[in-house]
Amino acid sequence: MPPLVIVSNRGPLSFAFEDGRLVTRKGGGGLVTALGPAVAGTGATWFAAALSDADRQAAAAGTIEAEGFRVRPLTVEPNAYRMYYDVVSNGLLWFVYHGLFDLARRPRIDRRWREAWDAYRDVNRTFAEAVAADADDGSTVLVHDYHLSLLPAELAQKRPDLRTVYFQHTPFCAPDALRVLPASIATELLGGMAAARACGFHATRWAAAFEACTHDVLGRSARTFVSPASADADGIRAVAASEPCTEALRALEADVGDRQVIVRVDRIELSKNLLRGFHAFDELLRTAPEWRGRVVFAAFVYPSREGRPEYLAYRQEVEGLVRRINGTWGTAGWTPILYDPEDDFPRSVAALRRYDVLLVNPVRDGLNLVAKEGPLVNERDGVLALSRESGVWEELGGVALELNPFDVSDTAEVLASALSMSRDERADHARATREAAGARTSQQWLGDQVEAAAG
Amino acid sequence: MPPLVIVSNRGPLSFAFEDGRLVTRKGGGGLVTALGPAVAGTGATWFAAALSDADRQAAAAGTIEAEGFRVRPLTVEPNAYRMYYDVVSNGLLWFVYHGLFDLARRPRIDRRWREAWDAYRDVNRTFAEAVAADADDGSTVLVHDYHLSLLPAELAQKRPDLRTVYFQHTPFCAPDALRVLPASIATELLGGMAAARACGFHATRWAAAFEACTHDVLGRSARTFVSPASADADGIRAVAASEPCTEALRALEADVGDRQVIVRVDRIELSKNLLRGFHAFDELLRTAPEWRGRVVFAAFVYPSREGRPEYLAYRQEVEGLVRRINGTWGTAGWTPILYDPEDDFPRSVAALRRYDVLLVNPVRDGLNLVAKEGPLVNERDGVLALSRESGVWEELGGVALELNPFDVSDTAEVLASALSMSRDERADHARATREAAGARTSQQWLGDQVEAAAG
Repeated sequence: MPPLVIVSNRGPLSFAFEDGRLVTRKGGGGLVTALGPAVAGTGATWFAAALSDADRQAAAAGTIEAEGFRVRPLTVEPNAYRMYYDVVSNGLLWFVYHGLFDLARRPRIDRRWREAWDAYRDVNRTFAEAVAADADDGSTVLVHDYHLSLLPAELAQKRPDLRTVYFQHTPFCAPDALRVLPASIATELLGGMAAARACGFHATRWAAAFEACTHDVLGRSARTFVSPASADADGIRAVAASEPCTEALRALEADVGDRQVIVRVDRIELSKNLLRGFHAFDELLRTAPEWRGRVVFAAFVYPSREGRPEYLAYRQEVEGLVRRINGTWGTAGWTPILYDPEDDFPRSVAALRRYDVLLVNPVRDGLNLVAKEGPLVNERDGVLALSRESGVWEELGGVALELNPFDVSDTAEVLASALSMSRDERADHARATREAAGARTSQQWLGDQVEAAAG
Repeated sequence: MPPLVIVSNRGPLSFAFEDGRLVTRKGGGGLVTALGPAVAGTGATWFAAALSDADRQAAAAGTIEAEGFRVRPLTVEPNAYRMYYDVVSNGLLWFVYHGLFDLARRPRIDRRWREAWDAYRDVNRTFAEAVAADADDGSTVLVHDYHLSLLPAELAQKRPDLRTVYFQHTPFCAPDALRVLPASIATELLGGMAAARACGFHATRWAAAFEACTHDVLGRSARTFVSPASADADGIRAVAASEPCTEALRALEADVGDRQVIVRVDRIELSKNLLRGFHAFDELLRTAPEWRGRVVFAAFVYPSREGRPEYLAYRQEVEGLVRRINGTWGTAGWTPILYDPEDDFPRSVAALRRYDVLLVNPVRDGLNLVAKEGPLVNERDGVLALSRESGVWEELGGVALELNPFDVSDTAEVLASALSMSRDERADHARATREAAGARTSQQWLGDQVEAAAG
């Protein structure tokens, strides 16, 4: 196997100062969760941006040895990073790919935004230069996600010997939606990706949309492959078995008693559809009074991208709605929604162990790992209620309960069905979802990427 | 030629009481503007909803003779009409087809909305029953627009002898966007349209999107045809030559003096992109100071669908922005934006006679007749700055200045280019746009529909 290089914005390790010494920590986010376990032991070199002062100090030291692979943090000028990350990646591309713009008003592309695009290109070039200077001849280079879409083209130019594959974790949008971008930028973006030997996605739907866009904008096809990431089954089971998780489960049990529990675990993110999830619960309590007092909705969500005003506004709306629903239906002994916006991973896993119904209702989602993690650790033969707009729908749609995330009546009915399932039905459902959720391994996912690079 | 039947929500005539007597008036809206002149003299029967008390009184009288055709107003129960028109047609279908939902929040499909869908079906059935009871054997039936999408299927069932064609004046959306609808409703909607002998659109882009949706949802293809409507050249020239128009032009001239004039004429409608149009003008004044004091933006826009909160909110935003821009740049002798939300058609035509630049920048538009009407009556060799997202782009894109409606810097640059054109360039441009805008007649458009029914 040729030498392996991974490139992503966020890396598998972050650094911190403790008592003046530089120490390493495990990096966060879905990409690292999915990719980290597969890369361990491969001897790969993993390039990622240095995000903090400690990261930058580590970057100055060069390469860091980790568990069977090496990490290369890259220093990026902070203002350029902000434009590349906040303005272009999360302020525009994320919204375009997820279809989240209120198009009568946003985006409003202007001079400032064009400067941000220049910064995006510069940061991609910084990554390309570092990889080009370091990678061994004929290396396989796996570029991960929409922050680094121009990297394949940059590398193809600088190092034609490298076998570059690009993988995008988000959805891809239809050509109609991509037309919000200036034509020259759409061409540059798609050309950047299509210069890879192949572009990978978690679902055929996103791969097909990307192909339609390259036809429309570039007038040619691009090679794609579909390979959904797997949950880190060993990792999540280890957390589930840990003392902090068990303690959190005990605390949750004390709160909910013998009631049924609907759970959601999500970033507070517009695509995750928290609002309609709570509206559906409200509709359930309104239309099926037998559930009042007998079910709790445990929403263990955590803040995300709070530098962006859209996210702050969304969080406020979500929290206002939770207060309203609890005010409407709550009684002395029963709080309908347990809402806690603290990022507490062991507690999230505790909720996954405990759910009777797991609600995963994004308006659009590249994959959604929670829908795979839940069935792997759940101990109650819980039911998965899954949006047909998630990428993971292609793997779990055959076994999960289907919901249309835009339809709160439909979602309420799906919740009612799930809560009303017999013990036998639940056992069958749980077995089937557990099998489907665990069907693939991280190694298979990595293997698909390496194979696409060789092809 | 077989007998001809037209069906649309709004008809070519409206009725009113004057001194207690029922009198007729010309109906409004783009559909009637485009279709009315072609239908005159054909002997067609035109079915449309009775919207007012006077309309309903006319409906009770049965068929009304008009100029070479007959009008059949249909009485619809007011509450059903409101749900069919406000909730389903304009509250959901319009937003879906134009891509205007802020999907993190809207739509929120619920029980009330499902009841509205039942009303939409009922009103479509009311139309179908009236047509089925009245139409001569083998009639050609032309069903117009998204209010009546279920009519072709209803008619196919009730009267298989009729040759029904469906024409949609709005854009059509990609399959991704249609997925906000409940699956059963998407199937019913597309099945309703696809039961026609053919479905017509103003642009190939919308026809292709419809075909993609029928493949995705129905698993089969549907026959489509593309036939852009024409402006009513004689009608608009007659208004241009009228005394009220000439008087309005004199008043406008008194306001603007010898300054250059950017004009827009639009409904106050989210798809029309008024906000970014004004932001672009703001950017022009900021970045090209030579234009301060030398150009006026005359925005003759008029309220629309004010029963819907989205439209009221949008109008308030627009008017706040206009005040801000006039406050920033205006001087004692110069108001940068002349904004007047009065529906005054002769004055709108006066503005079309006078423009140096006509700004047509919708985020999405089925066709856009103003882009055709302007060049036909303009007297200044004015320049057309046209959104590539309008359906009319397919006809005028070769001659108009292209703009990306999401990009205010680009729009500002296009305005600056248009304002800076030499007299000769403008004369060439105006000749070419006038020719392209007048290339088709209403009769050709109607002929295409009748031919599609025969095929």
